[in-house]
Amino acid sequence: MTWAMERLLLSRVQRFTMSIAMQANVHRLSMQHPADLAGLAALFDSGALAPTDVAAVIGKTEGNGGVNDFTRGYFTFALATLLSERLGTSRSEILERIPCVLSGGTEGVLSPHYLVLERRHRSVRAALGSPPSASKRLAIGVAFTEPMAPEAIGRQAHVDAIAGAVQAAMRDAGIDDVNDIHFVQVKTPCVTVARAAAAAARGASVVSTDANRAMAYARAAGAFGVAAALREADRHALSDAAMLTDVALYSSRASISSGVEVDRNEVIVLGNSARWTGDLAIAHRPMRDALDLPAVIATLADLGIAAAPQVADAHRIRGVLVKCEPDRRGAVRGHRHTMLDDTDINAQRHIRGAVGGLVAGVMGDGRIFVSGGAEHQGPDGGGLIAVIAEI
Amino acid sequence: MTWAMERLLLSRVQRFTMSIAMQANVHRLSMQHPADLAGLAALFDSGALAPTDVAAVIGKTEGNGGVNDFTRGYFTFALATLLSERLGTSRSEILERIPCVLSGGTEGVLSPHYLVLERRHRSVRAALGSPPSASKRLAIGVAFTEPMAPEAIGRQAHVDAIAGAVQAAMRDAGIDDVNDIHFVQVKTPCVTVARAAAAAARGASVVSTDANRAMAYARAAGAFGVAAALREADRHALSDAAMLTDVALYSSRASISSGVEVDRNEVIVLGNSARWTGDLAIAHRPMRDALDLPAVIATLADLGIAAAPQVADAHRIRGVLVKCEPDRRGAVRGHRHTMLDDTDINAQRHIRGAVGGLVAGVMGDGRIFVSGGAEHQGPDGGGLIAVIAEI
Amino acid sequence: MTWAMERLLLSRVQRFTMSIAMQANVHRLSMQHPADLAGLAALFDSGALAPTDVAAVIGKTEGNGGVNDFTRGYFTFALATLLSERLGTSRSEILERIPCVLSGGTEGVLSPHYLVLERRHRSVRAALGSPPSASKRLAIGVAFTEPMAPEAIGRQAHVDAIAGAVQAAMRDAGIDDVNDIHFVQVKTPCVTVARAAAAAARGASVVSTDANRAMAYARAAGAFGVAAALREADRHALSDAAMLTDVALYSSRASISSGVEVDRNEVIVLGNSARWTGDLAIAHRPMRDALDLPAVIATLADLGIAAAPQVADAHRIRGVLVKCEPDRRGAVRGHRHTMLDDTDINAQRHIRGAVGGLVAGVMGDGRIFVSGGAEHQGPDGGGLIAVIAEI
Amino acid sequence: MTWAMERLLLSRVQRFTMSIAMQANVHRLSMQHPADLAGLAALFDSGALAPTDVAAVIGKTEGNGGVNDFTRGYFTFALATLLSERLGTSRSEILERIPCVLSGGTEGVLSPHYLVLERRHRSVRAALGSPPSASKRLAIGVAFTEPMAPEAIGRQAHVDAIAGAVQAAMRDAGIDDVNDIHFVQVKTPCVTVARAAAAAARGASVVSTDANRAMAYARAAGAFGVAAALREADRHALSDAAMLTDVALYSSRASISSGVEVDRNEVIVLGNSARWTGDLAIAHRPMRDALDLPAVIATLADLGIAAAPQVADAHRIRGVLVKCEPDRRGAVRGHRHTMLDDTDINAQRHIRGAVGGLVAGVMGDGRIFVSGGAEHQGPDGGGLIAVIAEI
Repeated sequence: MTWAMERLLLSRVQRFTMSIAMQANVHRLSMQHPADLAGLAALFDSGALAPTDVAAVIGKTEGNGGVNDFTRGYFTFALATLLSERLGTSRSEILERIPCVLSGGTEGVLSPHYLVLERRHRSVRAALGSPPSASKRLAIGVAFTEPMAPEAIGRQAHVDAIAGAVQAAMRDAGIDDVNDIHFVQVKTPCVTVARAAAAAARGASVVSTDANRAMAYARAAGAFGVAAALREADRHALSDAAMLTDVALYSSRASISSGVEVDRNEVIVLGNSARWTGDLAIAHRPMRDALDLPAVIATLADLGIAAAPQVADAHRIRGVLVKCEPDRRGAVRGHRHTMLDDTDINAQRHIRGAVGGLVAGVMGDGRIFVSGGAEHQGPDGGGLIAVIAEI
Repeated sequence: MTWAMERLLLSRVQRFTMSIAMQANVHRLSMQHPADLAGLAALFDSGALAPTDVAAVIGKTEGNGGVNDFTRGYFTFALATLLSERLGTSRSEILERIPCVLSGGTEGVLSPHYLVLERRHRSVRAALGSPPSASKRLAIGVAFTEPMAPEAIGRQAHVDAIAGAVQAAMRDAGIDDVNDIHFVQVKTPCVTVARAAAAAARGASVVSTDANRAMAYARAAGAFGVAAALREADRHALSDAAMLTDVALYSSRASISSGVEVDRNEVIVLGNSARWTGDLAIAHRPMRDALDLPAVIATLADLGIAAAPQVADAHRIRGVLVKCEPDRRGAVRGHRHTMLDDTDINAQRHIRGAVGGLVAGVMGDGRIFVSGGAEHQGPDGGGLIAVIAEI
Repeated sequence: MTWAMERLLLSRVQRFTMSIAMQANVHRLSMQHPADLAGLAALFDSGALAPTDVAAVIGKTEGNGGVNDFTRGYFTFALATLLSERLGTSRSEILERIPCVLSGGTEGVLSPHYLVLERRHRSVRAALGSPPSASKRLAIGVAFTEPMAPEAIGRQAHVDAIAGAVQAAMRDAGIDDVNDIHFVQVKTPCVTVARAAAAAARGASVVSTDANRAMAYARAAGAFGVAAALREADRHALSDAAMLTDVALYSSRASISSGVEVDRNEVIVLGNSARWTGDLAIAHRPMRDALDLPAVIATLADLGIAAAPQVADAHRIRGVLVKCEPDRRGAVRGHRHTMLDDTDINAQRHIRGAVGGLVAGVMGDGRIFVSGGAEHQGPDGGGLIAVIAEI
Repeated sequence: MTWAMERLLLSRVQRFTMSIAMQANVHRLSMQHPADLAGLAALFDSGALAPTDVAAVIGKTEGNGGVNDFTRGYFTFALATLLSERLGTSRSEILERIPCVLSGGTEGVLSPHYLVLERRHRSVRAALGSPPSASKRLAIGVAFTEPMAPEAIGRQAHVDAIAGAVQAAMRDAGIDDVNDIHFVQVKTPCVTVARAAAAAARGASVVSTDANRAMAYARAAGAFGVAAALREADRHALSDAAMLTDVALYSSRASISSGVEVDRNEVIVLGNSARWTGDLAIAHRPMRDALDLPAVIATLADLGIAAAPQVADAHRIRGVLVKCEPDRRGAVRGHRHTMLDDTDINAQRHIRGAVGGLVAGVMGDGRIFVSGGAEHQGPDGGGLIAVIAEI
C-alpha cells in the first residue's frame, strides 16, 4: 500500500469515525486564582470529563495582559501538572498536544475563568441508535505546526504556515466548508532578543527588532493566514506590504495571540458541523467598533437567543469570545478617547474593560474572554465576537 | 414690612418670574485637554450663550480620579479664569457662585467633556406670547451652604446641611414636588489632616482620621441628606450608625463627590417642571449592579427614546450622568471580579471603564459622565443613571 | 527513660552535632522569570548543593508586591515541584518543611533573584581535623508553629506564638545569645473573608474585618513577637493597644510578611555563631528613614567591607535584606513626598524603588531583597538593613 | 551708525554691564500641589525677589511624567497667571520670555519643588565698591529660537538651531569658554499628528510618524545641538544617521525635554563666570549608569562639599539636576532589571524613583530634579548630575 493510499484510507476512516462518533462539549470553569484548577480536577474526579478528552483550553487570567503578565504561565504550569498527573505523561508532552491559550487581564466586571473544550468519541452503538442531528453542532479541531524560524515570523512564510495549520485543524474537525468556521484561535511565536540574535548569527534578519512591533507583525501574519485559509481575502492581497497598513484586509473569525512562550503555531478552530453531535453551536459577527452593541445582539440572534436587551436564559451561554482594540485614530465615533496616551494604564487594559463591560452587560455575566491586539482581526478599531451556546 | 413678609413677597415674585420666564439648556462640549475651554469661549463669542447665564458646570476630565488627580483643579482654574475675564469678577467670586463639579477618569471609551448648564430668563413678551409647555421641562437649581466644621463632616449635622441645601436648590429651581427631582449633584468637603488638627485644637474629634474612610462618610452623609430632602427614606433611619452599614438605605437620585478643594457644600438639582420652558427633560433609574443594562434602556424609554438595542437618534441626548461602584462583596451576579484586589489599577477606574463601556454602547457615544464612590447612592454594588434629552 | 530525659539527651546530641558539624552557605541566584529555577537545578546537577541541605529560600520576584501578585505563588509552585522531584516527596511536604519567603516587586534597578540558604553537616572527621573558627560565622535556624486560629491573628496569642517560634529557630541554629541574631524573617497568616467567617461561626471575632488593616496587625504582632524573643522591648509594653500605635516600639531585626497563602507561622533566623563554620557572617542596622545612607555604610563596616562610597569587592556580598516604609507622616526629613496619595502607583512600590536604588548604589548591584510593610520593624518611616558577606 | 556697529556697541555695553553688575541666585521652593506658587508669591510680597528678575523656572511636579501628565501645564498656567498679574503683561508674553521647564514624576522620596533662577543687576556703586570675585560664580543665560517646522524636528536643522541657541544663551550669560558651562536645559517641540499632517500638506515628511519615536529623535537632536555648541563631539559625527544609534556620542551637560506644548526651542545655560557675583557655583559629572554613586560624590567634591557618605551641610545645596535612563539592554552591571517590560509602571517612572532615591540619599534631601529620556545625554544607560551650591 503506497503512502498516498494509506493517507486516503486513514482519511476515510477518520471521516467515518467522525460521521458517527464525535461530540463536543464546553466546560466554563471559574478560578479563585491563576493556578486554581479545582473545577477541572472535580470534573475528572466525578467522571464527568475524561482527561483524554480535553482537546484545548482557552482562559482569562487576572494579570495585566502585558509582557510581564505571569498569570498565563502560572496557569499553564498548573494545568500541565494536573494533566501530567492524570494522563501519566510529562508536562512538556501535554503542552505539545493540547493548545492552552490564555489572555491576561480581567478588567472591570470580567471574571477569571477558562473554557475546557472537550472532544468525545461516542460509542458506535450510541451513534447508530440516535437520529442524525437536525442541525449542525459545535465542532472542534486543533493543529500544531513545526517550530518557526525567527526570520519567518511576521512574513509570508508565517502566513502560509498559519493557513496550512488552519486547514489541518479544519480537517481535524471534519469541516470542509469555510463558512462553517466561526472562530479560529491562534497562538504564535514572537521575535525575542535571543531569537533575533540567533537569526543574525545565521545571516538572517527579523521583521523588526522592536519587540512590540514584531509582535504586532506576528499577529498580522496570523490573521492573514486565517483570512487566507477561510478565503476571506485574496491570497495575493495578503502581502507583507499590506500588514499593519491595509486595515480593510481582515478576518472576522481570527483571534491571534503572540507570545514568547511558544516556538510553533498552535491553532484551534471552532465551527458547526452536521457530523458532530451534542447540544452546542457557535456563531460570530465582526464588531465595527468598541460600541458595536448591535453585533453582540445579532450574534445571539443567530443562535436563537433573544436579548431584549439582556439575555434572559443566560444558562444557555457556554462561552463568549471577543477581540477588540483601542482605536488607533484616537477617537470612537468622532469622540476623542484617551486610551493611547495614558501612561498609567495600558491601552489594551482600557479597551478590554470597556468592551468587556458592554458584552457582559448583554450577557448578564462577567465570564467573557476578551483579548486585545486585534490587528486585521475585524474592522479597524473594532474586532469580533463569537458565542457558544446550547441550541 | 416684616422680614417674613419680605421673604413671602420675594418668594412670590420669584415664583411669578419662574412661571413665565425660565428656560434651561445644556451644552455638551468636548475637551482636547483639561484646560481646553475653547468650546465654551466660542459659545460666548458667538452670543449663543451669555456668560451670566452659566448656572453650573459638570465635567469629566482625563485624570486618574484619585486624590492626586489634578486635572479637576486645572479645569476649574481655567474655567474660573475664563469666566472671570468675561464677567469682570475675581476667580474666587466665580467659584463661590457657580458650582463646578468634575469627576476625573475617562477610562476606556469615555470621552473628556463637560456640560454647561444654562439658565435663561425669557423676555416677558416671549413668555406671554408662547403657549405653556404641554409637558414638564428641564429645571435647574443650585445652592451653597456655609463652610462646614471638620467635626461635622460625615455626621448628622452634615446630613441636615445637605438636606437643607437640596431644599434651597429645589426652591431655586421652582420645584415643589420631590418626585420631579431626577438628579442631585453634591460636592462636599472632606476631612484633611490639617482640618482634623484644627478640630483637635478646639477639643473636637473628626469622624475618622483615615482620609479615605472620612471621605466615604462624607459621601454617605451627602447621600443621606439627599434621601432626607427627597423623602426617599425616613429621616430617623438615616442615622450615624446606618452610614456605610445599612446598604438598603439609599437615594436613587444622589451623586456625591467629596474633595479637599471645597469647604462648603455645593448642590445642583436637576428636575422637570411645568414652570420651565425649553426642549429638554430629564429621567433617571437606579442601577442594581454594574450589568444593569435594562435600567439604561428604561431611562431612555422614560424620555421616549427607543434603544433597540442602540439609540438611533443619538443627537437628542444632551447629557448622561452615571454613578457606580465596584461591588464590595467581590462578585457581580455570582462571578468573582478582581477590581478590589488590584494593586495596579484603582478599583474606581475599573468600574468606571466597565459601566462607561456599557452605557456608551447603548448611547453610541463615549461622552458619559461616570463617577465612582457610590455609597448609599443607588443599590449596593450598583448606582444610578440619569439622562437629559430633547423631547 | 522519661520524656524529659529523652528531650535532654536529644538536645545534648544536637548541641554536640552543632558544635562540630554545621556549616552555612548562601547561594544568590538570578531568575529570568518567576518560575526560573535553572540556577538551583544546575547546583543540584553539579553536586555543588545537595537538595537535602536546602534550609530555606528568600526571594524577590517581579510582581507588583500586592494582594494580586501571583509571581510569589508561581515561584513557590515551581520550587516545590523541583524539590519534590529531587527529594521524592510531595509538594505540600516540601512547603511544610522549608520556609519559602517571597517579596514581590523589583522596582527600578532591583533585579529578580533568590537566596538559597544551605545548611550542611560536615563530616566528623573534617570537623575534628579543622581548627575552630577564630570568629563567629553565619548560622541558620528555622521553625514552624501550629496553624493559627483566625481570631488569634494580630493579638497577644500571635505575639506569643511568634516569640516561641523565634526561640525554637534560635535553638535550631544553636544560638543562645540574642545579640548574635541579626535578621529574623517571619511569614505569618492573615485574616481572610473566609477565615473571618469561620471565626464568626464559632462566636469569635477577628482583629479587623478590613483585610489590609488585619494584615498590618498581623505584621505588627510578628514584629512584637520578634522583639519579645530578642528582648528588644519589655514584653508587657508589647500590648495589643501598642500595636500600630506606639511607633517607638520596634525590632530592628524583624522582617515580617503576612499573606493568605499560609495558615501557620514560618520563621527563619540568621545570626552568627562560633559553633558554625564557613566563610560567611551577617550584620544589621536599623534605618532611621528612607535616606539613611549612613546605616548602609555602617552595616558594611561591621563586616569589614569598605564603601567609599561604593563597595569595591562586591563579590564578597552574598545577600542584602532591607525593610522599608513610606513615611506615613507624608514627609521625609521635612520635605513632602507623594507616595501615599498616588492612585497610580502603590506606595510600597514607590518606597522599594527608592530605597532599593540607594542600597543598590552602595553595593553596585541590583540584587537587593527590599520589602515594604515595616510596621514596628525599625524606626517609624524607616526600617532595617542586613548584609550577609564573606569575611 | 551701521547695524554691525550698533550690534558691536550693544555687545560691548552688555559685556561692560556684565563685568560689573550681574548676580545669580536660585530659590528652591516647595509645592503643596502643582499650582501652588505661594512660595514665589511670598518672595515677591516680601521684596526678596523682584518679578522682573525671574530669568527661568525649572521644576518637578507630581504627575506621571508621560504624555498625559497635565501637572506641567497646570503649573505653567498658574505661574504665567501669577507673573502676568505682577508684571502687568499677558500670560502668553510671559511664556515667550521666561523659559519654564517642568519634569513630571516625583517617584519615591522625590519632593515636588521648583527652582526660580534669579538674575539681578547690581547697582554700579555696589559693584565698584566690592572686590572682584576670587572665583567664578554661577551665571545664567537664556535663549529662544524661532518656531521649528515639523519636518525639521529631529534632523540636522534642529541640531543647528539648538547649537545656535546654546551659543546665544552663552552670550546672554556672558560666558565665552565652553568649559565654564555645566548644565544646559533645552525644551524643544515634538512632532504631533496635527504637525505631521501640516508638513505632509506642504509635501514635507517628518522624521517619524510614531509620536514616541519622533520625540526621542527630538531629544537626540537637542543633545547633539548642545554637544556641537559645547564642542563635546565633532560636528560632522553628529549626523542624522548617528541619532539614537551611536550611543558613544553624547553631551554630559545636556538635559533635553521634548513636548507638544512648545513650538520653538527654549534654552537655559548654567555655568560659572568671573563676571558674575553671588554665593553660588555649579558643577557636573556624567553618570555612567543608574548605580553611579561615585559621580554624585565627585560632583559635590568639585564644589568643596564633603559627603562621607552623606552631605553634612545640606543647607549649602541650592539645586540638584539629574538626567537618567532605564538601560535599554535590560541589565544594570550584568543584572537583569524589569523596567522595560513592565506594563503597570512606565520605565521612566521606575528609573526616576531609583536614581532619585540614590541621589537624595547622598544629599539627605528629596528635592532633586530627576528627568528621564536621556538619549545622548550622558553615557548609554546612564545620564548626568549637576549641583548648584553655596561656596
